[in-house]
Amino acid sequence: MNYRIALIRGDGIGPEVVGEAVKVLERVGKTFGHTYEFVDVLLGGCATDAVGKSYPDGTAEKCRACDAVLLGAVGGPRWGADKPAEQRPETALLAIRKDLGLYANLRPATLRPAMIDACPLKTETAQRGIDLMMVRELTGGIYFGRREKYETDDRGVECADRMAYSEHEIERIGRRAFELSRLRRRKVTSVDKANVLETSRLWRSVMHRLAQEYPDVAYEDFLVDNCAMQLVRDPGQFDVLVTENMFGDILSDEASMVTGSIGLLPSASIGDRAPGLYEPIHGSAPDIAGQDKANPIATILSAAMMFRYSFQRAAEADAIEAAVDAVLAEGWRTADIAEPGVTPVGTRKMGELICQKL
Amino acid sequence: MNYRIALIRGDGIGPEVVGEAVKVLERVGKTFGHTYEFVDVLLGGCATDAVGKSYPDGTAEKCRACDAVLLGAVGGPRWGADKPAEQRPETALLAIRKDLGLYANLRPATLRPAMIDACPLKTETAQRGIDLMMVRELTGGIYFGRREKYETDDRGVECADRMAYSEHEIERIGRRAFELSRLRRRKVTSVDKANVLETSRLWRSVMHRLAQEYPDVAYEDFLVDNCAMQLVRDPGQFDVLVTENMFGDILSDEASMVTGSIGLLPSASIGDRAPGLYEPIHGSAPDIAGQDKANPIATILSAAMMFRYSFQRAAEADAIEAAVDAVLAEGWRTADIAEPGVTPVGTRKMGELICQKL
Ligand SMILES: CC(C)[C@H](C(=O)O)[C@@H](O)C(=O)O
Ligand SMILES: CC(C)[C@H](C(=O)O)[C@@H](O)C(=O)O
Repeated sequence: MNYRIALIRGDGIGPEVVGEAVKVLERVGKTFGHTYEFVDVLLGGCATDAVGKSYPDGTAEKCRACDAVLLGAVGGPRWGADKPAEQRPETALLAIRKDLGLYANLRPATLRPAMIDACPLKTETAQRGIDLMMVRELTGGIYFGRREKYETDDRGVECADRMAYSEHEIERIGRRAFELSRLRRRKVTSVDKANVLETSRLWRSVMHRLAQEYPDVAYEDFLVDNCAMQLVRDPGQFDVLVTENMFGDILSDEASMVTGSIGLLPSASIGDRAPGLYEPIHGSAPDIAGQDKANPIATILSAAMMFRYSFQRAAEADAIEAAVDAVLAEGWRTADIAEPGVTPVGTRKMGELICQKL
Repeated sequence: MNYRIALIRGDGIGPEVVGEAVKVLERVGKTFGHTYEFVDVLLGGCATDAVGKSYPDGTAEKCRACDAVLLGAVGGPRWGADKPAEQRPETALLAIRKDLGLYANLRPATLRPAMIDACPLKTETAQRGIDLMMVRELTGGIYFGRREKYETDDRGVECADRMAYSEHEIERIGRRAFELSRLRRRKVTSVDKANVLETSRLWRSVMHRLAQEYPDVAYEDFLVDNCAMQLVRDPGQFDVLVTENMFGDILSDEASMVTGSIGLLPSASIGDRAPGLYEPIHGSAPDIAGQDKANPIATILSAAMMFRYSFQRAAEADAIEAAVDAVLAEGWRTADIAEPGVTPVGTRKMGELICQKL
């Protein structure tokens, strides 16, 4: 096949890690007979610097002309919360998700076999394994709701953010979660705050309806506060977790840290149509940018997710994941995951090592 | 002194754990020369069963006639999310917080010296210690905002919850956090999502203004998703954390679990006037209710917080905390915290042991 892939290299270490993922894609192409057309797309702080806006006009169109989007990392202290919205990288991230209809954010939190020691939890818990998939609703809820700001007579300025969800939005993300669980351990945990929020009660009722449609999948509800506890106590209990945008933002980061391998974790953001967007969960790490120190594995594993979820090519995805595990098993580490006493390898070297296994 | 204390024994194990805390209060009274008048107040599932509503008329007035409120636990599967609002225990909890003006929820997450093994984190992390105080805004934000529910033409039912905050609300909780940090390690971490939410941008600007007023207190901002990670990675870095209602709900439960001692953790909910409300953070555990198995320590430590924050009596609070630590150091454990091989003691025995140390 020939795939057209948009590359959003972004800020900080973004260009370096995307560079290594591209090497891996080329290599996989040779083995499996694929070719690529890469299309560079400007987005994030670098776009603000270049054209004054983090989300340049025409970005969505450029991406829509591709089969998938690979993003490195965007953001950094230079484009902080004090800047106007159109200059902030977050604005671009939220806008591209909405414009491309990427309502499902898949965030695996996996403790890879070679990384058990990195897990911050007790060794017994780590040894039981962690392999969960967080399915976060990504284009609704409070991150996209109406904002208000007004003066009051007696309470100073007051602000408001609105969290809204429709049955339609909940059903489509729920369906993704149930379908996904059938490729895994057939268990879905839906997370809400149905004892307080109206949106959560709607969420729960739609999930219960779906659970009837998937009788082969074990289903349970957790309250968000309880889920935040259980992820620390016993993360191995979870298979697929599905939740709304903000809860998913918080819980998926917590789950990632519970694996101890932030530098290894990929993500996929998908909708009903191509292109899906693939990116590491880590940030742009401006402090180590351009120094060949960044860990490219999360971006490389994001490319694996691209094969799995956008191109329906499980063999290529499996091959990339196996190559990463093989390199880790041999003890190779970038600085972020090197135990004391281990000499770390650089970004490019790690990319090459993974290519060699392919 | 003579103290009038409202007792909300509540549901499940609530009555048992309150019973032990009352024994401890009596004992402290003997030593320090206090007497009490206890006023029983019905609230929660037991109130629904008795009078058809979880928050009977006159509840707030009864509490307001007291110097403080001690609550055991409310709730249980019999009064679930499918019941009408006025029958649900949550409704009562939210209402009493609002009616008594309890806008500041203080939730210490402390790893007590004798409990280091219970911590789910690696031993090295646990040994560095965890002693943080979560200050959660308790009467504002999305848990108290306007709710909407309506039919749409194309998206089915849609629901909405509104998160609002005023400068006034943010300032008073912020001030509490800064003041409290002066009795501790003089560090405040404010948690928000200022890169997305309007309410969080207001939150952050008010906190920055307060930070100027407290130059002796170290101040930092964390995004909520990052904070959820840091609580797992390195909880020892935090002193006082201050955040809005929903973030505080999620993060304080996460922080509690990070200590591994849910059965030991107390909380205080206070406003500008008496009475404050004191309760363990654990739930009503209906499965073990009435079996003399519940751990009363969290409720006993809540009574200690009552002395500290409502009665301004640090000596009594210190004495209760020291008694708890002494009993734990001797190896006494209730079933929830007993390591394999340790024969647990019952609720009443644990209460007596603590009284004996006072
Ligand atoms: C930058 C921000 C808007 C974004 C989010 O919260 O969605 C980020 O935290 C993420 O999780 O991708
Ligand atoms: C029961 C519920 C309303 C309550 C809350 O979220 O405030 C509880 O979770 C708590 O933290 O006290």
